[in-house]
Amino acid sequence: MYLEKIEKPNDIKKIPPSEYYNLAAEIREFLIEKVSKTGGHLASNLGVVELTMALHLSFNLPKDKIIWDVGHQSYTHKLLTGRKEGFDNLRKYGGMSGFPKRSESEYDSFDTGHSSTSVSAGVGIAAARDILGQRYHVVSVIGDGALTGGMAFEALNNASSIKKNFIIVLNDNEMSIAPNVGGISEMLTQIRMSDKYSELKDKVMRHLSQIPSGHDIAKKLKKTKDGIKRSIMPGQITESLGINYYGPIDGHDIGGMLHAFNAAKKVKGPVIVHVLTKKGKGYHPAESSPDSFHGISPFDINTGKVVSSGGGRSYAGVFSDKICELAAKREDIIGITAAMPDGTGLKRFSTEFPGRYFDVGIAEAHAVTFSAGLAAGGVLPVFAVYSSFLQRGYDQMLHDVCIQGFKVIFALDHAGLVGSDGETHQGIFDLSYLASIPGMTVFAPKNARELEAGLEYAVNEHEGPIALRYPSGKASDFMAKRCPAIKPGKAEVLFREKDIVLFAVGRMVEAAAGARDILKNKGYSVTLVNARFVQPFDTALIKRLSKDHSLLVTVEENVLSGGFGEHVCRFVQESRLDINVKVCALPDEYIEQGSVLVLLKNAGLDAESIAKTVEKEYGKA
Amino acid sequence: MYLEKIEKPNDIKKIPPSEYYNLAAEIREFLIEKVSKTGGHLASNLGVVELTMALHLSFNLPKDKIIWDVGHQSYTHKLLTGRKEGFDNLRKYGGMSGFPKRSESEYDSFDTGHSSTSVSAGVGIAAARDILGQRYHVVSVIGDGALTGGMAFEALNNASSIKKNFIIVLNDNEMSIAPNVGGISEMLTQIRMSDKYSELKDKVMRHLSQIPSGHDIAKKLKKTKDGIKRSIMPGQITESLGINYYGPIDGHDIGGMLHAFNAAKKVKGPVIVHVLTKKGKGYHPAESSPDSFHGISPFDINTGKVVSSGGGRSYAGVFSDKICELAAKREDIIGITAAMPDGTGLKRFSTEFPGRYFDVGIAEAHAVTFSAGLAAGGVLPVFAVYSSFLQRGYDQMLHDVCIQGFKVIFALDHAGLVGSDGETHQGIFDLSYLASIPGMTVFAPKNARELEAGLEYAVNEHEGPIALRYPSGKASDFMAKRCPAIKPGKAEVLFREKDIVLFAVGRMVEAAAGARDILKNKGYSVTLVNARFVQPFDTALIKRLSKDHSLLVTVEENVLSGGFGEHVCRFVQESRLDINVKVCALPDEYIEQGSVLVLLKNAGLDAESIAKTVEKEYGKA
Repeated sequence: MYLEKIEKPNDIKKIPPSEYYNLAAEIREFLIEKVSKTGGHLASNLGVVELTMALHLSFNLPKDKIIWDVGHQSYTHKLLTGRKEGFDNLRKYGGMSGFPKRSESEYDSFDTGHSSTSVSAGVGIAAARDILGQRYHVVSVIGDGALTGGMAFEALNNASSIKKNFIIVLNDNEMSIAPNVGGISEMLTQIRMSDKYSELKDKVMRHLSQIPSGHDIAKKLKKTKDGIKRSIMPGQITESLGINYYGPIDGHDIGGMLHAFNAAKKVKGPVIVHVLTKKGKGYHPAESSPDSFHGISPFDINTGKVVSSGGGRSYAGVFSDKICELAAKREDIIGITAAMPDGTGLKRFSTEFPGRYFDVGIAEAHAVTFSAGLAAGGVLPVFAVYSSFLQRGYDQMLHDVCIQGFKVIFALDHAGLVGSDGETHQGIFDLSYLASIPGMTVFAPKNARELEAGLEYAVNEHEGPIALRYPSGKASDFMAKRCPAIKPGKAEVLFREKDIVLFAVGRMVEAAAGARDILKNKGYSVTLVNARFVQPFDTALIKRLSKDHSLLVTVEENVLSGGFGEHVCRFVQESRLDINVKVCALPDEYIEQGSVLVLLKNAGLDAESIAKTVEKEYGKA
Repeated sequence: MYLEKIEKPNDIKKIPPSEYYNLAAEIREFLIEKVSKTGGHLASNLGVVELTMALHLSFNLPKDKIIWDVGHQSYTHKLLTGRKEGFDNLRKYGGMSGFPKRSESEYDSFDTGHSSTSVSAGVGIAAARDILGQRYHVVSVIGDGALTGGMAFEALNNASSIKKNFIIVLNDNEMSIAPNVGGISEMLTQIRMSDKYSELKDKVMRHLSQIPSGHDIAKKLKKTKDGIKRSIMPGQITESLGINYYGPIDGHDIGGMLHAFNAAKKVKGPVIVHVLTKKGKGYHPAESSPDSFHGISPFDINTGKVVSSGGGRSYAGVFSDKICELAAKREDIIGITAAMPDGTGLKRFSTEFPGRYFDVGIAEAHAVTFSAGLAAGGVLPVFAVYSSFLQRGYDQMLHDVCIQGFKVIFALDHAGLVGSDGETHQGIFDLSYLASIPGMTVFAPKNARELEAGLEYAVNEHEGPIALRYPSGKASDFMAKRCPAIKPGKAEVLFREKDIVLFAVGRMVEAAAGARDILKNKGYSVTLVNARFVQPFDTALIKRLSKDHSLLVTVEENVLSGGFGEHVCRFVQESRLDINVKVCALPDEYIEQGSVLVLLKNAGLDAESIAKTVEKEYGKA
């Protein structure tokens, strides 16, 4: 009824206030229905329907700027800015992004994806505005989980110092993806109970006014920046930092939020508006299990159950079981996650070995150095993390783990293309950034069995830091039982012929095998190698192979620049080996969303494309 | 007198308490004298003499673990652990490190160098200790400046959550390198005035006990975790996070600190001991100008003046003047530093354009995304930062700047070898980590004039993100006046001959020219190219040169892996060019301290070594 009237941006301003909650209900229904078909982020979006409506009602978009931290909660924002039709192709190749994208709409003022960036970006935009003498509001919407990320703190510290007018909406749902951890979370819980403090404050003030010098003291307390008001009222951290604070406010009460936003607009300097929302609100299965409905595959609306996609264990599942098996034998194995026990497969470990499990919050930089500390203390840390998020710990790997040569195991999930999350989440840089770190070993398994073997090797045999790199989704059962013993730095020769070598990394081994089949049918003689170790790699094998092969084709799911293929090129060049090298990798570009199969095909990394590339290169002089 | 008795670790425990301050005076005299000869970090070390003594007296080393954040303040610690002789070769090649090094002493429990890591490492060690059922104390010593780094906050948040016994000494000298900025700093200033609050608290409590229900309220206030006690007493942030707090304590009062440390040892869970110290204490020139005595070259003790090293403008100085010249013409140029206005050459900018200058604190991650926000807001941010510190902003460059293609200029100082700071500070990874980021342009000038031209190009002509990479120390006057117009992606051919090409990056152009002279004298025909652009690089030129050259030698001051040479190898391989490539670069290792000249020679990157390499390679089949 009302959703029909929302066709273009700011149409919400024509809806009569009496109908706001009817519209909110329609939006929820719409989102549940659409996401049940396409999959996507649901619980977080259901939580911010009224908050988004209030922002759109209160602010003057697109002149005012809203920055959505992480950005997976921007569905209602997209719906209210003329992108209703986009939901049919949400997160699909060529379709609408699940995150804010400047290229998609002028109402998206800053692209997000990783956590905790919105305050930094917001302060920057506000500073630019004032320097240019422009007038508009800047609003960063950040969740309580994202607030545990260090750069959010750096940004708050900076915001308080440069004193630009700037509104931070703290969307507090007591969750990041999993329930939050750490002092910040406990503090927010205390604030949630703040009615008590307000009562207490009133009582103290009342009594003080009754005693002789009480009035003076009360005045003093009101005046002094660190007086009683500040501790009894919430917002200690923010006000300690010199940032104004309003809240907490019911994030499902549109009138209350409109009131707060209007007040916040008048504040000089940065101000936090603390709103309380319920993740998954309005859809029972999501309310009761917000973890499962954080990012979800297509599901049945009635039951809330995911429509089976055929099943099969994921690499995360393989890791999950194997690390528990190993930890049962070795009491020094420690599991570390940065707020993603489910996604990374550490959930079971957390249940079976609670004393050896640490969820550090959304804090990858700390997680890496914390792991170095654990290693310095004599235990064996295993940090399970997504490839694109470990980008946050680059300096810490280089500076805290590897200079000292600590044995830390990085279980690097979502390495390679991840699909529907798009540019920000593709794990296609790790072979490059890991390879630039002296002392870091990098291993990539071709199938589930090899991940198990690799983990066992890392735990029981390897010395020093090591990263095991494997993709999201279903673990490969390619050559399911094949996994000869792992030898450090040694590759696995799967088929030994001559003329052409396909030298593939991780998931690409299966694709290369497919290419080999095609080439064999055409009469080519093709050796297939599973690289296993990307750093250090098997130079001795390449030397041997160069004697009876004329073309070496490397295949990897990483950008070209700094990847495996380039290292091989240098080795072949400097050793003056008589063999041509062709590097098959992802282009040096950000790669959009879409199914992994489509994206691989686009990049020439499916079996047919690889076969074509080989034929073409082999045919060259 | 007393310093003579300090020969091995724990000798300080034999010194009678009445003589502590005499020993402190002798230590200061020793440090001033030694550092006046070798250069090094002075002001920070003079500030923590008593603090270090108190730690050594109170704790049982090496069983207990002390982690020094950043680590440049560990000189007294080194002196008290049997390393007195080391000061003659402090920060020299083969000599004693200016930072804690596990390889140097078992009393150094964790290597540091970059800021804000000590709490993460400390929590990790404490967690390992408890898991292994061991008993010892863990102490992280962190400065107030380092506390503005986001990972310190991530670590505090985590420490409060995992509740391990663990002592954090907050060494508050109101400075990082430059005076601190941001809310944290203001809060600490308030805490410094905390006497007022204690008085106020007593007054309130007294009055409350005089009124009828006042006693109950006072009790309630005492009990409630967020009661009056917490706001009137200092330590708001830490206690908000659930971390115990003692302080502030005079950091030059050994008895007071011993008392506090003993109390802290008994606390369950993490505890902060807040000590106030004076940077440079006991040496007037350092007290009055702690910035200059942060890291200092050899100086005259009487005057405090640096012994002239011959002079000449540094690249930072060249950048400093040029950015001011450009900013006078373009009002949208913004200067950003992460707590290093002096080191990076932004000091003058901060004076001339205060409204367009931002010191964000030790917060590189935020600085990068803040810059992205500034660009989104329509101005032109120039983030001046050291190469090794920008490692902290890798994800932010990739995720916040480059995906959106924002024009942000990175003025990357201290790129390449930096000398006496050693492993943690060498800027030898940036060509690799920058090259892995799609859309990032990388430019390296051969001399001062070319840095000016490069900056002008970046500001006025370039589109999108760009990094200008230049070394520490004196700007090269090699071919001082030569700098033809810069064309995007194009190299500069300095000498065009045939047979051999030297293709060099930045500072290595001068070394390559020296190699060319040697080779010319021996009768070789050598082309010399200044790469200028490392990404994208001049592939068309390489193609042309391959027609009448048989050997291409790339020369760069970066690790091999992922560096310029590897990109060239791939291009030559894939283009099937008829030319051999040899990559001259730094080995894939961490490189110790020493003079840059010695380190370059060791790595084969001086003129003679390059010439030898070329001869050898040219002589191959």
